Amino acid sequence: MSQSFDIAVIGATGTVGETVVQVLEERNFPVGNLHLLASIESAGHSVPFRGKNVRVREVDEFDFSKVRLAFFAAGPAVSRSYAEKAVAAGCSVVDLSGAFPAVQAPNIVPEINATLLHSGAAASLVASPSASATAVALALAPLRGLIDIQSVTVTACLAVSALGREGVSELARQTTELLNVRPLETRFFDRQMAFNVLAQVGTPDESGHLPLERRLVDELRELLTLPSLKVSATCIQVPVFFGDSFTVTLRTAGSVDVAAINAALESAAGIELVDEGDYPTPVGDAVGQDVVYVGRVRAGIDDPEQLNLWLTSDNVRKGAALNAVQVGELLIKDYV
Amino acid sequence: MSQSFDIAVIGATGTVGETVVQVLEERNFPVGNLHLLASIESAGHSVPFRGKNVRVREVDEFDFSKVRLAFFAAGPAVSRSYAEKAVAAGCSVVDLSGAFPAVQAPNIVPEINATLLHSGAAASLVASPSASATAVALALAPLRGLIDIQSVTVTACLAVSALGREGVSELARQTTELLNVRPLETRFFDRQMAFNVLAQVGTPDESGHLPLERRLVDELRELLTLPSLKVSATCIQVPVFFGDSFTVTLRTAGSVDVAAINAALESAAGIELVDEGDYPTPVGDAVGQDVVYVGRVRAGIDDPEQLNLWLTSDNVRKGAALNAVQVGELLIKDYV
Repeated sequence: MSQSFDIAVIGATGTVGETVVQVLEERNFPVGNLHLLASIESAGHSVPFRGKNVRVREVDEFDFSKVRLAFFAAGPAVSRSYAEKAVAAGCSVVDLSGAFPAVQAPNIVPEINATLLHSGAAASLVASPSASATAVALALAPLRGLIDIQSVTVTACLAVSALGREGVSELARQTTELLNVRPLETRFFDRQMAFNVLAQVGTPDESGHLPLERRLVDELRELLTLPSLKVSATCIQVPVFFGDSFTVTLRTAGSVDVAAINAALESAAGIELVDEGDYPTPVGDAVGQDVVYVGRVRAGIDDPEQLNLWLTSDNVRKGAALNAVQVGELLIKDYV
Repeated sequence: MSQSFDIAVIGATGTVGETVVQVLEERNFPVGNLHLLASIESAGHSVPFRGKNVRVREVDEFDFSKVRLAFFAAGPAVSRSYAEKAVAAGCSVVDLSGAFPAVQAPNIVPEINATLLHSGAAASLVASPSASATAVALALAPLRGLIDIQSVTVTACLAVSALGREGVSELARQTTELLNVRPLETRFFDRQMAFNVLAQVGTPDESGHLPLERRLVDELRELLTLPSLKVSATCIQVPVFFGDSFTVTLRTAGSVDVAAINAALESAAGIELVDEGDYPTPVGDAVGQDVVYVGRVRAGIDDPEQLNLWLTSDNVRKGAALNAVQVGELLIKDYV
């Protein structure tokens, strides 16, 4: 049993938390005892793991010294309340909530910056970035040596599962009502989501930016180690259940060599370049897969200093649960 | 009867052509005889106009000397076959197909460049631009005096009605099949369109650009009279029936004064600025309306030389039929 680790998953009943449990099983993570934790409202539910149903307990009553590693997949408030206590109790934490600044919890995407992790005796607090930052950084990291990136413009078309189970069930409910020609009553979203596009996901601050957009900009700069990179980020909500997609435009100093860009993307880890002429989509390509799909690689129209990409990835897997588990694998690797 | 004009609408059975007829009626366009024309397959159908059903006839057999004005709302091939003949027969043409270069048929959006039109004795060939160019140009034209635009990046999220009736019925059919848990058979689109986003609309050329993207770039430069403007355009297909939406990012020389931008947008013709904190959407705001809605006006995160906008407009009305009829109104104005 020296090669197994007792693990906690916090927020185990949510879309991401449940997928963390599923990915731990899929990847044969050396789990000893698995502790599933949630707020008092969700305690008592159970989640399947290795053929058994594991009961979800209340996070408030948990003793973190019982585990070596904890995945925080609830909201930022829960992470703020318990993550530092867990580290103090000797448990390493992978936080998925974006609750902590980079100086306290570095964002890790193993294909990009695994070397920042020290798999040592001391418990660490590390972060798994937002789904958007993970996808965009995975596609841009292999290009840093090839082009001098002056600015990045991202439109992130987010699936309703970005908002958890309620987003998913509300899109399904609205679509059904509309197809049955029933009057639409909006509940979870502030307006019609079915067959519509919303200009924002969450509530903007006084400058008009969303927390998700600020997180994307900060995390992208951090992951690419380009702290003053100019980034324009717009997160819109599309009527898609799972799978985010992204249009990305780079402006570069110097002409873009599309063949060299394709070659770099082709050989990069964590991404799958789709053949010219074809293109990837959330449903049919990205959803359920472990890589970020890249397509429509092209220079600008009459503008050789412009590079355009289309990306799509599973927001719950590589965008969250899978990346967090991969970070967990790095944290324990010296002990396995 | 000296104040009425005999009119032809070509492509009268399509989504846009039918809306041209509807807008002519709504706006009390001084129509004398209305001739509805289409290809041989659609001839024999009828379209309602002022309480009567007008029979659609075959374009091939029509004598354009019988009308003063013709709206070409079929594809580029039909415009190429008949528009120049119509002009030679003394009929002014408003072409909606994008078939002709700007030197031959200038693109007109009345709120922007009405002064280019000469309402004179000679028959003219003029163009009504693509829905995307119309929407983006309407929002950017009022800003030209305020900021020095270095580059524009547009992601156009196009409704399936951009592809006509077949796009609309295919999204409805796919959605119904999926909600009834029937296996999905794709027909009109090359893959699942319901609850999915497609990276392109149409077929890319050897450089990876879509005809719609090239048209957007060309028309935007023309409408803004900025012939060497750097534009990045990506047209994606979203599961929305009617109403296009756009994320637009400008990079400027000098800081952006958001209050001044808002004031300019507030007083501009053809657009409706939505209050800060709120935002417009295709369904609920733009569809059925005559203006382009603008929202989420904001500078960049740590980047005062960046301006971001969100736009939405009715792709069939201001994006096509309404703008064409407005152009027609200008062409006849000296005679009314």
